[in-house]
Amino acid sequence: MSDEIDRNNLNFYQELAEDNKSKVVLMVLDGLGGLPLESGGKTELEIAHTPRMDALACESICGLHSPVGPGIIPGSGPAHLGLFGYDPVKYQVGRGVLSALGIGFDLREGDVAARGNFCTVDEKGIITDRRAGRISSEKNRELCKLLRKIEIPGISIHIETVKEYRFLFVMGGKNLSGEVSATDPQNVGEKPLDPIPENEEAKYTAELIKKFIDKARNVLADHSPANMILLRGFSKRPQWPDFEDTFKVRAVAIAAYPMYRGVAKLVGMNALESGDTLDEEFSILEKNWLNYDFFFIHVKKIDSYGEDGKDKDKIRLIEEVDTYIPRLLKLKPDVLIVTGDHSTPSVLKSHSWHPVPVMIRSKYSRVDTVSEFGERACMYGGLGPRIPSHHLMPIAMANAGRLEKFGA
Amino acid sequence: MSDEIDRNNLNFYQELAEDNKSKVVLMVLDGLGGLPLESGGKTELEIAHTPRMDALACESICGLHSPVGPGIIPGSGPAHLGLFGYDPVKYQVGRGVLSALGIGFDLREGDVAARGNFCTVDEKGIITDRRAGRISSEKNRELCKLLRKIEIPGISIHIETVKEYRFLFVMGGKNLSGEVSATDPQNVGEKPLDPIPENEEAKYTAELIKKFIDKARNVLADHSPANMILLRGFSKRPQWPDFEDTFKVRAVAIAAYPMYRGVAKLVGMNALESGDTLDEEFSILEKNWLNYDFFFIHVKKIDSYGEDGKDKDKIRLIEEVDTYIPRLLKLKPDVLIVTGDHSTPSVLKSHSWHPVPVMIRSKYSRVDTVSEFGERACMYGGLGPRIPSHHLMPIAMANAGRLEKFGA
Repeated sequence: MSDEIDRNNLNFYQELAEDNKSKVVLMVLDGLGGLPLESGGKTELEIAHTPRMDALACESICGLHSPVGPGIIPGSGPAHLGLFGYDPVKYQVGRGVLSALGIGFDLREGDVAARGNFCTVDEKGIITDRRAGRISSEKNRELCKLLRKIEIPGISIHIETVKEYRFLFVMGGKNLSGEVSATDPQNVGEKPLDPIPENEEAKYTAELIKKFIDKARNVLADHSPANMILLRGFSKRPQWPDFEDTFKVRAVAIAAYPMYRGVAKLVGMNALESGDTLDEEFSILEKNWLNYDFFFIHVKKIDSYGEDGKDKDKIRLIEEVDTYIPRLLKLKPDVLIVTGDHSTPSVLKSHSWHPVPVMIRSKYSRVDTVSEFGERACMYGGLGPRIPSHHLMPIAMANAGRLEKFGA
Repeated sequence: MSDEIDRNNLNFYQELAEDNKSKVVLMVLDGLGGLPLESGGKTELEIAHTPRMDALACESICGLHSPVGPGIIPGSGPAHLGLFGYDPVKYQVGRGVLSALGIGFDLREGDVAARGNFCTVDEKGIITDRRAGRISSEKNRELCKLLRKIEIPGISIHIETVKEYRFLFVMGGKNLSGEVSATDPQNVGEKPLDPIPENEEAKYTAELIKKFIDKARNVLADHSPANMILLRGFSKRPQWPDFEDTFKVRAVAIAAYPMYRGVAKLVGMNALESGDTLDEEFSILEKNWLNYDFFFIHVKKIDSYGEDGKDKDKIRLIEEVDTYIPRLLKLKPDVLIVTGDHSTPSVLKSHSWHPVPVMIRSKYSRVDTVSEFGERACMYGGLGPRIPSHHLMPIAMANAGRLEKFGA
C-alpha cells in the first residue's frame, strides 16, 4: 500500500490519538476567503475591522489552507470534510446523500438517496425542460404528497421537498445499492434514461427504481409542467472512520443550517441545532462546554453574502464575528482554529478555488510573524500558503497534546 | 499507479543517480527544533549565539522540514529515515527491530526481533504490573541470563538487556515470520495473550514463541515481581532499497549512540562508532574524508537536554556545535545539510510535531533571503515552511550534481 494512502488514512491517526480532556474549537466562517473588491485593493476580510482576530493572529500560527486540491472549487460537503481531517478526494459523498444532509434528512444505514428534479416531457416522453419551469416550492410540496403514495413492495420510499423543482428521493430496505446510474440525460430533447445497475449486486435496486419511476410518470401525467421526474446521484451513507473514535474526542457541531450538522453527523459527530444569530450559537457553545471536547461552530451567512455579491454585508458580518472572540476565549479552549471552509469572493458571487486564511492558537503553536488575519498576511504564516485542509486537524490535535509519538 | 507512490519510491531516484565523486555532509543536531521559552520570546536555537551557522544560512537555501507528517510526533527511527530520503510512513520499522537498533544488536537476515517487558502476574496468571515494579537494569541482566538458558529446537534465541524492565528478544532460524501479534494486552487485570499468527506462514513462528514463553514462565516463577514476560513488535529486518545503491554514494554514519548507527546500517550505510564529544566526531569525519562520499554526522545531546527541559544546556551545546562549522567547511563539502531530525522543545520536555530548521549549502543552492538559522527565520526560506523530510535528500543529491535529467 502506498504511503500517501496510509498518511491520508485516518486509521493512521486513530492509532496515535489519546484522550487527555483538552478542549479544541474549530470556528468556521463559511466562505471566508475573498478577493480584492477592486484591482489593487483589499479583500473583504482585509477591509473588515477585526482587532480581536488580528490579536489572535499574533498569538497563532497562521497560513492559508487549500480545501480540496489545486484549482478545485469546493462544495460545502467536501470543504467541511477536509476541515474535519477527511481528505475530501478520498472521502467522497454522493449527491443523493448530500441532498439528504442539506435538508436534515437522517439517512439510516442501507438507505439509498438520490437527488430528484421535476421535469417536463412532451407526449413522446422527450424532455423539454429539465427543471419543470422552475415550479414553486409550494407546488413541489403538493407533488411530493402524490409521489409519497406510490408503493413498491419490499421497500419504503421517502420523498421530501428541497426547493423549487428539486426533491429528495430515499429508498429504505434490504440489499439496496447506490451503484445505479442517473436517469437524467443532462440534456433536453432526449428521453429520461433507465436506471442502469453498475454491477450485479445493484440489479435489484435498479429494478425497484425503474418501477418507482414508471409509477411516478403515471401519477404526474396530468401535472405538466411537472409531469415527470429525473433522479441522479444514487448513493448510500458512507461507512467512514468515526471522528470521535479516530481522534478520541467527544465532538459536537453547532450550526444553524442542516447541511453542516449533516456533514458533521456523517463523520460521527453529535450536532446541536442553533438559531441564525451568533449570540444563539455562542450561547449553545457555552452551555455545552463541559459536555464535549471538540466543538465545530459554523457561521453560515458570510458565504451567503459572498454568493450574493454583497461585499458590505460580508464585511459587516466578519466584523460582528470579531466581537464574539472574547466570549470564545473566556472559555479557555486549549486549541482554537479560526478559518473558513472555502473562499466565496463577493466579486465572483460564488465559491472559489482560492486558499483560505487559517490560524491555530494554542500554548504550543510555534507563533509566526503574522500580525493580521487576512489573505495576504496569512500567506507568510508558518503553516504556509497552501497547506491541505485535511492536515489542519492532526496539527490541532497535536497542539492539544492528543497525539502520541510515532515509532520509537 | 499513483504518482505519489512512484515519487516516494526510491527506485525512482536510483534510475537517475550517478556517481561524480562529490562530497555530501548531513549534519543532524538531534531534537534541534524548539519553541519559545516564554510566550512571545525566542526558541533555544534563536537564543543561541551562532554566528557561523547564521553565515551559513546566508549562503544556503533554508526552510523547515516536516519529519513524518502533519501533527505527527516522530520517534528517532522514523525521523532519521526521513532525512535519509526514506518516507517514514512508507518505510516503517517494527518495534522489535528498533529495539535491536537501540542497543546495537546486529540483526541478521531472517531474524525476528521483539521488544520484551518483564512483568508481574498473580497466582492466576493475571498481570498486576506491566513493568514488574520497574526493576533495576542490574536485576534485568540477571534475569536475562536465566532466559538465555532456554532452548527451543530448530532456532537460536538471543536475549539482551535494554534498561530496567525492558529487554530485547531475538530468534534466529529458517522460515521465521514477524507477522505475529503481541502478547502484551496493554492492560493490567488481564492474562498475557497468546502470540497469534497473522497468516498461515507465521504459524510455525507463533508456536515457537509460545514454547519460549511457556518455558520463560517456569524459569521466572520464583522471581516476582519479574515473574513473567510480555513480547510485542515482532518484526524482521526490512528489505529496503539500499542507500548506497540508490544514490550511488559510499555512505557512512558517525554517531556516538547505537540507535543512529543502527538506523543508518538499516538502509545500508556503513557506520563508525564515535565517542561522545564533538571533537571526536569531527576527528573521525576528517580521518575518513577520502573514504566516503556521503557523511551522516549525528549530535545527540541537544535532544537529551531538550527532553530534560534543560534549555540552557541545549542552547550551550548548539553554540558549541557552531564553533565546529569552520572545521567542517575546511573539508570543502560540495553539499552541506544542517538540520535536526525532529523538534524537542525544552518547554515540552519531549519530541514534538513542529517542523525543523534546515539549510542546504552548495555552489548551486538558490540562496534565499534568510540570514539567520532559527525557527522563524527559516519559515521564510526557499524550501518552504513544511517540506517533507524525505524530499531533502534528493535535493541535496541534485545540488551535488548526482542526479541526471528525468525524461528527454
